[in-house]
Amino acid sequence: MNADLATVAAADGTIVGIADIEAAAVRLAGIARRTPLLSSEALDAAVGGRLLIKPEPLQRTGSFKFRGAYNTIAQLPPGPVVAYSSGNHAQGVALAARLLGRRATIVMPADAPSIKKSNTERLGARLVLYDRNRDDREAIGREIAERDGAHLVKPYDDPRIMAGQGTVGLEMALDVRTLGIVPDAAIVCCGGGGLIAGTATALSHHFPEIAVWSAEPAGFDDTARSLRSGQREGNIPGATSICDALLAPMPGELTFAVNRPLLAGGLAVDDQAVLLAMREAFLELKVVVEPGGAIALAAALSGAFDCREKTVLVVLSGGNVDPARFIEALDSGR
Amino acid sequence: MNADLATVAAADGTIVGIADIEAAAVRLAGIARRTPLLSSEALDAAVGGRLLIKPEPLQRTGSFKFRGAYNTIAQLPPGPVVAYSSGNHAQGVALAARLLGRRATIVMPADAPSIKKSNTERLGARLVLYDRNRDDREAIGREIAERDGAHLVKPYDDPRIMAGQGTVGLEMALDVRTLGIVPDAAIVCCGGGGLIAGTATALSHHFPEIAVWSAEPAGFDDTARSLRSGQREGNIPGATSICDALLAPMPGELTFAVNRPLLAGGLAVDDQAVLLAMREAFLELKVVVEPGGAIALAAALSGAFDCREKTVLVVLSGGNVDPARFIEALDSGR
Repeated sequence: MNADLATVAAADGTIVGIADIEAAAVRLAGIARRTPLLSSEALDAAVGGRLLIKPEPLQRTGSFKFRGAYNTIAQLPPGPVVAYSSGNHAQGVALAARLLGRRATIVMPADAPSIKKSNTERLGARLVLYDRNRDDREAIGREIAERDGAHLVKPYDDPRIMAGQGTVGLEMALDVRTLGIVPDAAIVCCGGGGLIAGTATALSHHFPEIAVWSAEPAGFDDTARSLRSGQREGNIPGATSICDALLAPMPGELTFAVNRPLLAGGLAVDDQAVLLAMREAFLELKVVVEPGGAIALAAALSGAFDCREKTVLVVLSGGNVDPARFIEALDSGR
Repeated sequence: MNADLATVAAADGTIVGIADIEAAAVRLAGIARRTPLLSSEALDAAVGGRLLIKPEPLQRTGSFKFRGAYNTIAQLPPGPVVAYSSGNHAQGVALAARLLGRRATIVMPADAPSIKKSNTERLGARLVLYDRNRDDREAIGREIAERDGAHLVKPYDDPRIMAGQGTVGLEMALDVRTLGIVPDAAIVCCGGGGLIAGTATALSHHFPEIAVWSAEPAGFDDTARSLRSGQREGNIPGATSICDALLAPMPGELTFAVNRPLLAGGLAVDDQAVLLAMREAFLELKVVVEPGGAIALAAALSGAFDCREKTVLVVLSGGNVDPARFIEALDSGR
């Protein structure tokens, strides 16, 4: 599929549309947690606008990834599953597979936070570790899929994954409608782009004028640069970030086809702003957020996105963070 | 009112009844946050039962106290308000007063966590500090009430406060009913006893067989001892605890009259178990919990309450904790 065809397909709703997200919401009802919408007068005062915050650390397995994993595996033919993941997709696939009675093998980077590795094993999945700088995780995943007859559950570049993650946006849309609010903008973290693709689809359906912005780590702003150039750009090798969940090498083919026409643009945020946002989420929201999960809030609080006089939806995507990293964040404000 | 009369009154619903709590829920609709019910497969496995957890750190001002404060102040004649509080009631009163257009003065111990003092001031209240070991906070509160013509908003010993806090129990009851679950027990923290009085009233209405247990810090188990003796017992002076929210000197007159016939008994938990529970809430629930807010979970995880084969409701009551104390909790599991 080339980019132009994909764009047309997305505009027609053939990659992922609101009906797919609504169908995912039905599949997830009573299974995924319907997370609330939080706000803080202190954070609103700090940005000069109104933030409505979706805390997916409270989701089962501690991140939104469970939504897409369950929505996908529930639609697969019988048999085991395999996934490659930096950690949150791993846990989502592991729990979804267990709930659906399937064996799961997860290919994870050896340097993933230990909380993510141990949680994945605890959920009953078999773990295969790889070297982030040397090995090709997609190749390892495909190899296991062929050898074991397992279905590969991709982390983002699959319409069923996007539809499942899109229930985050659907829930936000319904909640703000209930409040009688029309949001001006949304900020959503972006690794491979599955969460923001589904979320932007749902939000744009309910609020056609909304501006949806991606938030990425500085040095890993492939989506921001791809949106500017109009084609998929890879990250420049050699950068590092504490946002372990957001280090995908380039936008997905399908996710970018969805995101290109829907997103307003991309924001990049450095690690120090991420640590400060984690600290503010601790102080003002009482939610534990991991680095990658805090980057959209960091974009708002750091001024990378100007929230003044605006109502802005902010997704906190996950909370699987080792205590040592969290302590670093708590110490960051001093 | 003597204890026997009060007990009769409570059984008749004249101190606080389900109708008062339902009326409070109507007053709080769209104003207090309807917090979700969380669970964790890891915590369930640890206790050998099923825990359904109500995370009030996600409530406005970071604790359940906002509920009772708003429910009370909304029913007062016009004029300013004054309250004495170890910190969470202070913030609840400060925000409720501001939302209802009233001036608020808060009498707080000088050694309260700085996060609670600064948050209270930030909400627009005037702060008066006192010495926890030397001054009589109730006397200071009464003095300000008389001098300023302010209404005293008591922290617990008021039927309107109990009814407001009881919406915690009402929401839990409605949520578990929706899930088709009949809980065996509930564990609720207990300082002066307002939260557990309202919560036990609501839960016992919906589930007459439920066993509601208080959780208190070791050395401050006045409610546990009072339930055993059948009359209000004070704490033995000289004890210390990190649970700053739960250091009331003895059960309230009205709260004990409600609690005496409703509660199954009282549990006492030491500080080390509290720190470990805060760490588990961080790891498994992604919720920031303060020491006093974690004591009910600590009672479950430490085995002070035997959860095996039971479905147990657990209230996390607040999350206003200074970073240094939270870091101590994160380090406690090593």
